Amino acid sequence: MTDFSPEVQASIDRVRADVARLHGELTRYGLVVWTGGNVSGRVPGADLFVIKPSGVGYDELTPENMILCDLDGAAVPGAPGSERNPSSDTAAHAYVYRNMPEVGGVVHTHSTYAVAWAARAEPIPCVITGMADEFGGEIPAGPFAVIGDDSIGRGIVETLRGHRSRAVLMQNHGPFTIGKDAKDAVKAAVMVEDAARSVHIARQLGEPVPIPQEKVDALYNRYQNVYGQTPQGGMNR
Amino acid sequence: MTDFSPEVQASIDRVRADVARLHGELTRYGLVVWTGGNVSGRVPGADLFVIKPSGVGYDELTPENMILCDLDGAAVPGAPGSERNPSSDTAAHAYVYRNMPEVGGVVHTHSTYAVAWAARAEPIPCVITGMADEFGGEIPAGPFAVIGDDSIGRGIVETLRGHRSRAVLMQNHGPFTIGKDAKDAVKAAVMVEDAARSVHIARQLGEPVPIPQEKVDALYNRYQNVYGQTPQGGMNR
Amino acid sequence: MTDFSPEVQASIDRVRADVARLHGELTRYGLVVWTGGNVSGRVPGADLFVIKPSGVGYDELTPENMILCDLDGAAVPGAPGSERNPSSDTAAHAYVYRNMPEVGGVVHTHSTYAVAWAARAEPIPCVITGMADEFGGEIPAGPFAVIGDDSIGRGIVETLRGHRSRAVLMQNHGPFTIGKDAKDAVKAAVMVEDAARSVHIARQLGEPVPIPQEKVDALYNRYQNVYGQTPQGGMNR
Amino acid sequence: MTDFSPEVQASIDRVRADVARLHGELTRYGLVVWTGGNVSGRVPGADLFVIKPSGVGYDELTPENMILCDLDGAAVPGAPGSERNPSSDTAAHAYVYRNMPEVGGVVHTHSTYAVAWAARAEPIPCVITGMADEFGGEIPAGPFAVIGDDSIGRGIVETLRGHRSRAVLMQNHGPFTIGKDAKDAVKAAVMVEDAARSVHIARQLGEPVPIPQEKVDALYNRYQNVYGQTPQGGMNR
Repeated sequence: MTDFSPEVQASIDRVRADVARLHGELTRYGLVVWTGGNVSGRVPGADLFVIKPSGVGYDELTPENMILCDLDGAAVPGAPGSERNPSSDTAAHAYVYRNMPEVGGVVHTHSTYAVAWAARAEPIPCVITGMADEFGGEIPAGPFAVIGDDSIGRGIVETLRGHRSRAVLMQNHGPFTIGKDAKDAVKAAVMVEDAARSVHIARQLGEPVPIPQEKVDALYNRYQNVYGQTPQGGMNR
Repeated sequence: MTDFSPEVQASIDRVRADVARLHGELTRYGLVVWTGGNVSGRVPGADLFVIKPSGVGYDELTPENMILCDLDGAAVPGAPGSERNPSSDTAAHAYVYRNMPEVGGVVHTHSTYAVAWAARAEPIPCVITGMADEFGGEIPAGPFAVIGDDSIGRGIVETLRGHRSRAVLMQNHGPFTIGKDAKDAVKAAVMVEDAARSVHIARQLGEPVPIPQEKVDALYNRYQNVYGQTPQGGMNR
Repeated sequence: MTDFSPEVQASIDRVRADVARLHGELTRYGLVVWTGGNVSGRVPGADLFVIKPSGVGYDELTPENMILCDLDGAAVPGAPGSERNPSSDTAAHAYVYRNMPEVGGVVHTHSTYAVAWAARAEPIPCVITGMADEFGGEIPAGPFAVIGDDSIGRGIVETLRGHRSRAVLMQNHGPFTIGKDAKDAVKAAVMVEDAARSVHIARQLGEPVPIPQEKVDALYNRYQNVYGQTPQGGMNR
Repeated sequence: MTDFSPEVQASIDRVRADVARLHGELTRYGLVVWTGGNVSGRVPGADLFVIKPSGVGYDELTPENMILCDLDGAAVPGAPGSERNPSSDTAAHAYVYRNMPEVGGVVHTHSTYAVAWAARAEPIPCVITGMADEFGGEIPAGPFAVIGDDSIGRGIVETLRGHRSRAVLMQNHGPFTIGKDAKDAVKAAVMVEDAARSVHIARQLGEPVPIPQEKVDALYNRYQNVYGQTPQGGMNR
């Protein structure tokens, strides 16, 4: 069952390395504590994804102990790391990969300010241009859902399908983000906390000035198509 | 008096190493300043525990200068480190070990947000799923008590005995946490500050949505029994 | 077109090194996340400036991949780094250099507290002596402007021309700072966030005491002329 | 004039090393930005003190570039470092050393939360036991004073003389702390920011519970006489 074509094996190895390394961005930006939080990445050209093991410290993550899963969230037997359990959020990641084929990466954290908005089930209004660039408008709140069935994954997909935002604030829980690959989803996790913090602080001393919708649209379209060294491209949604 | 059986000596050495190293988690997560805060760990199979020396900097802590104490909080004469005074909170740690045999680790910090709730003698309500996982409900406030007799230890034990929470916010003082071992108590110290901060920030801009009690129960039971590579087990309380 | 006199080439090399290195101060002080934020520096004795490439990570910045631009914001063909796009804020930097000949450095960040004031389009009142020293009074808010024409650059210049402050809070966007050179503009970016944070926190629990205008003037004049190892000199504005 | 007795020279060398090194604690605890903030230490057995040069970066401080001053705040000609200007706050430090012979160290920062209380000219009430231990009660606010004469030094001395607190919040300016030596004053600078932050956050969501005065007294007396490896001793005030 771990006998993949050389092309798929090369993709798996690349995604293992990316996912292991990208967890370091979660600690670098203070988005996680202890063993909380997780990053996953889809393996291009296969019905597989790679995710963090459950309850393992950030200092101990390596490409080899990342866990290769099928799209039902089951660890592929015999693959490196498969002697451990995958992240307890694996079912939610798997649901997203099954239902949003354009998604190549998923991230979940309990980052402080995003959790605070989530605890109030309140979307973050788009009052800073950086949010318009990155999320194209407000960052939505999702439903209350608990681990144990498909309800978290379903809540993510129902909220983000057809939405510009790559981030959802699951009620009383925290942010889940998606992206064209794991790095893009990690970037969204960094940016949702930045937006959550900046808008929280802005609102503590008064009401932010709204940004007209057509300006939000213009900023979003430019950023997705022009910013950086190659157009961002997004997820063709 | 320092002539222990090889098994006990091996346990002492292991706990010394763990306790010394775990202090690094307190600085890593910004839970302490200067020489404040302390971690202790019970020596399995003996009426002994290991604790930080008083007023020594975090950069200078080593397994050898940790202090071995009996369950009355007295340093064991002749043991490495015994030329120094143990932490000024040693009596409180000792009281907990004497009265809660299921406890294998105790931690005390002055972490900012937990101290803020403690200054108001206000429990932290359980409005985020991460708190339900880790603490099983609200984090309680304990009584006002000062150093000099058993009142701090008694306040900790009376508040936490029979409570799901491994953390108590001692009034006007700060958090004390317990665990099945020193690492588990340190994890609780990290998570209580994270919960204190997230719920504080959530409440600054409105009221968080409550989580129904049966959902809190389900989250707590799952996390204690399923999360990580082996069931958490808890303290059999 | 990259055939500069030895003197100009030496200046270019020096500014490349300064600009690349100074980006490290933005991460050191937590003013930026991911690839956001940018520093530029004018090349003394030439109609040129050096700026960060677009969408490149802070760990990857070197003197060689900084981008040399003319004062219209176009990359100089053939110069090192010119195969990449310059920062998406390059037009705003260029506008400032064209219209404020005394300016030798420009910085833009999305630092949290400055963004919060910008989201409310509210100037930061001068209620701490450190602000009087550094900015000579309040830090002004600028107009709403979006990328795509000269409106950001024009907003910066119209707000800061004739103003003591080296920082402007562009509405819904964030701070832009200017200085006699890139280092001076970076210092202003660090100090505007520090002022934005301190005054925000002061106002959360009441009204700060105003500082009489003549004291603000005295502090500003002293600091510009006496502080440090050589008089600050400023920008002769 | 730099021809000191071997004993005094040894003291000077020791204080130079301590003062240079202790500046690292200001950056470690985030109390300063850029070149702001300063530590000084009295030379035991001589009418001299050692202080940071003005406007020099924290990464560049060494024992050799610290500046040796007499008690009028004038750099001792010919001593190492004397080609530079001492900190612009040197006159305030000198005033304290001239008027409080029990003081062996002085520190000044613009740490965020202490500045916030200072901007409101509001003392920090003693509602946490850590403040009672360290400061023996509230941390007082001092008068408004500007650089250029003795008014800052006078404000510090008039506020702290006969007061248990080793910290004063100079109005609209920031904290100055004193101690029996430079390290003790640095500790007070760390602890005043910690207290300022914790009490600020406590008050954001309600009123902290007061601590009875006799409990404050008991905590202060115990901490000054018992904590650590040797009694704290204090400054015999």
